[in-house]
Amino acid sequence: MGERSLERLLNPRSVAIVGASPTPGALGNSVLANLERHGFQGDIHLINPKRDAIGGRSCLKSIAELPEGVDAAVLAIPGPAVLGAVRELAERGVGAAVIFAAGFAEGGEDGLAAQREIARIADECSMVIEGPNCLGMTNFVAGIPLTFVETPLHPFSGEGIGIVSQSGAMAVVLGTTLMAKGLPISLSISTGNEAASSVEDYVEHLIADADTRVIAMIVEQFRKPVRFLALAARARTAGKTIVLLHPGKSSAARESAATHTGAMAGDYALMRAKVERAGVVLVDGLEELGDVADIALRARPVGAGGIAVLTESGAFKALTLDLCEQLGLDLPAMGELTTTSMRNAIPDFIPVSNPMDLTAQALVDPDLYRRTLEPLLADPTYAAVVLGIIQTDETTAARKFLPIIDAIRALAPQKPVLFAGLDDGAAFNPDYLSGLRALGVPYFPSPDRALRALAHLSRLSGREMAASDALPIAIQMSAGVVPEYRAKALLGPIGIAFPEGGFAATLDEARSIAARVGYPVAIKAQSAALSHKSDAGGVILGIGDAGALAAAWDRLFENVAAYDSAIAVDGVQIEKMGARGVELIVGARNDPEWGPILLAGFGGVQAELLQDVCLLAPDLTHAAIVGELRQLKSGALLDGYRGSPALDVDAVATLIATLGRILLGTPAIREIDLNPVVVYPVGQGVVALDALILAE
Amino acid sequence: MGERSLERLLNPRSVAIVGASPTPGALGNSVLANLERHGFQGDIHLINPKRDAIGGRSCLKSIAELPEGVDAAVLAIPGPAVLGAVRELAERGVGAAVIFAAGFAEGGEDGLAAQREIARIADECSMVIEGPNCLGMTNFVAGIPLTFVETPLHPFSGEGIGIVSQSGAMAVVLGTTLMAKGLPISLSISTGNEAASSVEDYVEHLIADADTRVIAMIVEQFRKPVRFLALAARARTAGKTIVLLHPGKSSAARESAATHTGAMAGDYALMRAKVERAGVVLVDGLEELGDVADIALRARPVGAGGIAVLTESGAFKALTLDLCEQLGLDLPAMGELTTTSMRNAIPDFIPVSNPMDLTAQALVDPDLYRRTLEPLLADPTYAAVVLGIIQTDETTAARKFLPIIDAIRALAPQKPVLFAGLDDGAAFNPDYLSGLRALGVPYFPSPDRALRALAHLSRLSGREMAASDALPIAIQMSAGVVPEYRAKALLGPIGIAFPEGGFAATLDEARSIAARVGYPVAIKAQSAALSHKSDAGGVILGIGDAGALAAAWDRLFENVAAYDSAIAVDGVQIEKMGARGVELIVGARNDPEWGPILLAGFGGVQAELLQDVCLLAPDLTHAAIVGELRQLKSGALLDGYRGSPALDVDAVATLIATLGRILLGTPAIREIDLNPVVVYPVGQGVVALDALILAE
Repeated sequence: MGERSLERLLNPRSVAIVGASPTPGALGNSVLANLERHGFQGDIHLINPKRDAIGGRSCLKSIAELPEGVDAAVLAIPGPAVLGAVRELAERGVGAAVIFAAGFAEGGEDGLAAQREIARIADECSMVIEGPNCLGMTNFVAGIPLTFVETPLHPFSGEGIGIVSQSGAMAVVLGTTLMAKGLPISLSISTGNEAASSVEDYVEHLIADADTRVIAMIVEQFRKPVRFLALAARARTAGKTIVLLHPGKSSAARESAATHTGAMAGDYALMRAKVERAGVVLVDGLEELGDVADIALRARPVGAGGIAVLTESGAFKALTLDLCEQLGLDLPAMGELTTTSMRNAIPDFIPVSNPMDLTAQALVDPDLYRRTLEPLLADPTYAAVVLGIIQTDETTAARKFLPIIDAIRALAPQKPVLFAGLDDGAAFNPDYLSGLRALGVPYFPSPDRALRALAHLSRLSGREMAASDALPIAIQMSAGVVPEYRAKALLGPIGIAFPEGGFAATLDEARSIAARVGYPVAIKAQSAALSHKSDAGGVILGIGDAGALAAAWDRLFENVAAYDSAIAVDGVQIEKMGARGVELIVGARNDPEWGPILLAGFGGVQAELLQDVCLLAPDLTHAAIVGELRQLKSGALLDGYRGSPALDVDAVATLIATLGRILLGTPAIREIDLNPVVVYPVGQGVVALDALILAE
Repeated sequence: MGERSLERLLNPRSVAIVGASPTPGALGNSVLANLERHGFQGDIHLINPKRDAIGGRSCLKSIAELPEGVDAAVLAIPGPAVLGAVRELAERGVGAAVIFAAGFAEGGEDGLAAQREIARIADECSMVIEGPNCLGMTNFVAGIPLTFVETPLHPFSGEGIGIVSQSGAMAVVLGTTLMAKGLPISLSISTGNEAASSVEDYVEHLIADADTRVIAMIVEQFRKPVRFLALAARARTAGKTIVLLHPGKSSAARESAATHTGAMAGDYALMRAKVERAGVVLVDGLEELGDVADIALRARPVGAGGIAVLTESGAFKALTLDLCEQLGLDLPAMGELTTTSMRNAIPDFIPVSNPMDLTAQALVDPDLYRRTLEPLLADPTYAAVVLGIIQTDETTAARKFLPIIDAIRALAPQKPVLFAGLDDGAAFNPDYLSGLRALGVPYFPSPDRALRALAHLSRLSGREMAASDALPIAIQMSAGVVPEYRAKALLGPIGIAFPEGGFAATLDEARSIAARVGYPVAIKAQSAALSHKSDAGGVILGIGDAGALAAAWDRLFENVAAYDSAIAVDGVQIEKMGARGVELIVGARNDPEWGPILLAGFGGVQAELLQDVCLLAPDLTHAAIVGELRQLKSGALLDGYRGSPALDVDAVATLIATLGRILLGTPAIREIDLNPVVVYPVGQGVVALDALILAE
């Protein structure tokens, strides 16, 4: 049957409509109407057992009458008829099927079984399945809609945005918004339940598609997360931007996704850490999705650096300072050279600053826009320039848009310039929009939207994307829980610092270890079956001398036996009690869905309550780890807050990097926990008090 | 000269234009053009020494030629000429002057002096001054623009929105946006530097103005904060909503405001606590300002309760759950009765939930909107209903807007209903907007905007506004710093709990106190000059017996003497060391600008870093205080987090309420600090370890 090819779905030369209908409003009628309106040039085969012809086109009685090898079939038929139809299509060598009907994986066990059978047939026959429970797709470049949603003609030129959405409704919604912004769309695909082909397949196609430069996605669950991450990296290399909207920040949303898509939603924070690391722009809402896609497609790439804002009101300048602080958008002051150029460009009564408030002066001096834009565009401090303009009415707008468009044309900016109207709803000639857009300047009806969208792209460009070149570390261990003493024996030699001490099988050994490291000591019961030692009374701290040690030894064994008599204790870890310090939690995990990830944060109840942790890719550079640690809510503690000494952040970063290398070098590890890790002042390092490894 | 009356400025029967000009674009020309375009029916006096007539109207040579008692004069003249003109206007008994020129308080010392002189003249002659550095005002009800900004005719009917903005540009910007939303504007006033009349005066006018129901404000600094708070309370009583945009969350914005308005901006958090307590809706940006004003004017008042969302996409439902969690908007599940009604209203394949996802079913069953809206409107759980509708195109939109408009007309909702289009930019017949608006339904181009604006109003309605009926408490003390032992002696009898102990002038006294309360004890040096005892070595903890007390006593005096030999120590506070507990910080302050305010939060370096504190009005009820404490970031600690016992939140609230009563009863107090306050488990109360009072 040959290779499964998305091309047959997305750019078909021939299309069959199963369930073609003469009734306006019926799915099978709308699909045909769409194809005809878009002037589809390929063969169209209508299948309807009760009709000889529809709209002048003859009908086939059944799928069996189809010629061999039709590219794509659209199933405009009820759910119960779908599985049989797919079987027949496979027999006719049809390349792809679009299934609108719902009631499969999301509709209970029978539906799930039917969906699995569809997937099996598709795999066997190298058939592409879009859906079920989808709204189809539209190829705007070739003008081929395979959907019942009335799809407008939308002219395509240059490069465009590819839409990939699990939700069909959201694909349509996003398409409407992008079209209203005058943005070219290459392909719009709704994947529905993803019986056989999932968002990852379509993304792969779009990365290779010369007509697509930006991929806008709405996804509730990635079915092949690791593959998506690899594709995201490939997109980045190819200079293509992926913008992703992913519901599920709230647990309520995750439950909701499970109900209506039949998919289990995963951990949002983990997904965020992973996709952002892969260079994906993750946005928070539909508005942002469209706005970021707009900038990504139209404007020059956002480089590293701060932004400059050129505006016409002092109060708005203050609002911008507030908003940018909240968004983490840097508004650096102008350097000496730029200040001088700016000073020469503006009247004396206007102070130089960023945001630059031009007052209403450009109304009497329209060239002011050009003169002030020029130094901002020339200054490498600024990665982008945002114009916050008061439009007011047709007359006023004309006196501003025209000189601004002229200025941008003359200056031919090599960095993004965004135009934001301050007064949403102001009337002006729509030609100005086209004028700006032709010059690569996106228009926003409010500065908040421009700055929010820009902040997303700026955060991405400011992120260290390089991978550490440190080598992976492979360690050997048995499967299951590796208890503390053995985990420490494995990790210690690699350079992870633990308290001085050792493992004792007998009280005599314990005494000798304690004598060697010095009192006071802590003792901890060791058993693979004892993952919460403290709860079992299996940890005794602050033992001052040999007599106390003997008493504690007995008590420890009694405690554990009382907690659960079935637990076999291997022995006891004896350790010197160390100085107190700031406590961190540090862990590593090989997520079954998303792969390796590290976690670091502040310890203690309050930090836990505030979820003051960050998730880190295992291959971050030392500098990137330090950067992430500093961005923790309590990050200032690391630098010595209120008279306390600066802490050994380098040692923390080294510890985290080492865990990352172990994760990358030892795929059998499912989890490593080092909690707590005590951080000492600069130069004095870190000590992990506990260690636990879970392996498979 | 009679009472100063804003009426003469805002609704003048006669207007003088000082600096009238025949030159298009000149300020004095634009003012006249505006008045003529709006069909001003009163007398217009033009003053221009060089012209006999302008546009067929004769000119006076000077202000001195004005008839006695013109209501308002517009000064379209350069700054240096303004002061002289104001003097002459005062002599002619002119009621009000609008001053456009800048360069006064914000332009250095000379400017400030000129502004003060203008204020003096205005006070002396009961003259109203708008500005300087303003854009004038427009009375849209009477059709009277006193501004050079080309001001469109905007029909007024019913009740409208009054705009009061210190920034002239922002007044214009907001006006443009509100007009584009089809909202009636009663008055738009830009107050500029507020030489004599400030935003508070205009707000007072608008509260009394029958044409105004919503007051939209843009303020960088309240010059009379306490008066504004009283007015806000009055507005609330009068059923009028004040919506406020106040830049200055960031320190950068506060500095910027100082530069361009010559005003010193204050503490944003304090302002927020105070204005919100007075019932003002504080918003974060221009877009929100317009959106909240829209709902406040058009829709029924938002009562207490959650919201219901009716939509057409499962993915959007998930996005809404995410956004509402972030906004703190409650989406309660439907109760039994509503669930049953909803179940009967929808096809079996659609599950009942909130948000309620109708899928695309309404396209084939347009009455579905009415049937599903009805139970939501009837359910008192829901304070408001938001429709999240996919508009797509003219045809689809018609099939949705029309039945929705019919449904709302038929159901005549007694709670707010908002319409949010999911696909911003979708084309539809603008008559639908008018149709919705005529029924009191605001339209939003994105659900994010609808929900954000609604969250502000919902937060206000959910807030406990009642004042505690507990009586104020007056205490007597001398001015200046009241040291710990005397503060404790003052506050203890009122019911604030401190550790057992007492003040000792001699070691013998100290011994006898320690013997009475029991060891271990803490000792603390007492002096009004010693506000940071710990820094001076003036606190020694954990003294175990009488011998140690004697040694500590000597060390304490030595430490303080070494720290600063000039400090006279009154004696030593001896206190029993208590059990450890969760530490809070609690304080009270009489702010010179905003009046009394309380502060409470978690103690410790990490809490400080995270600014985990709340500001509380001094007259909050016990329940409201408890509610605010629970909303602290670490608020869950109060309820017993991770196995720790629930804390005595009632005792904390009683302590805070007592401080509030003291603040209200003792105006001489500038500050009370009780840090730290240790909170014990439920029933075991709180103990303040320290106490400091600053009085005047």
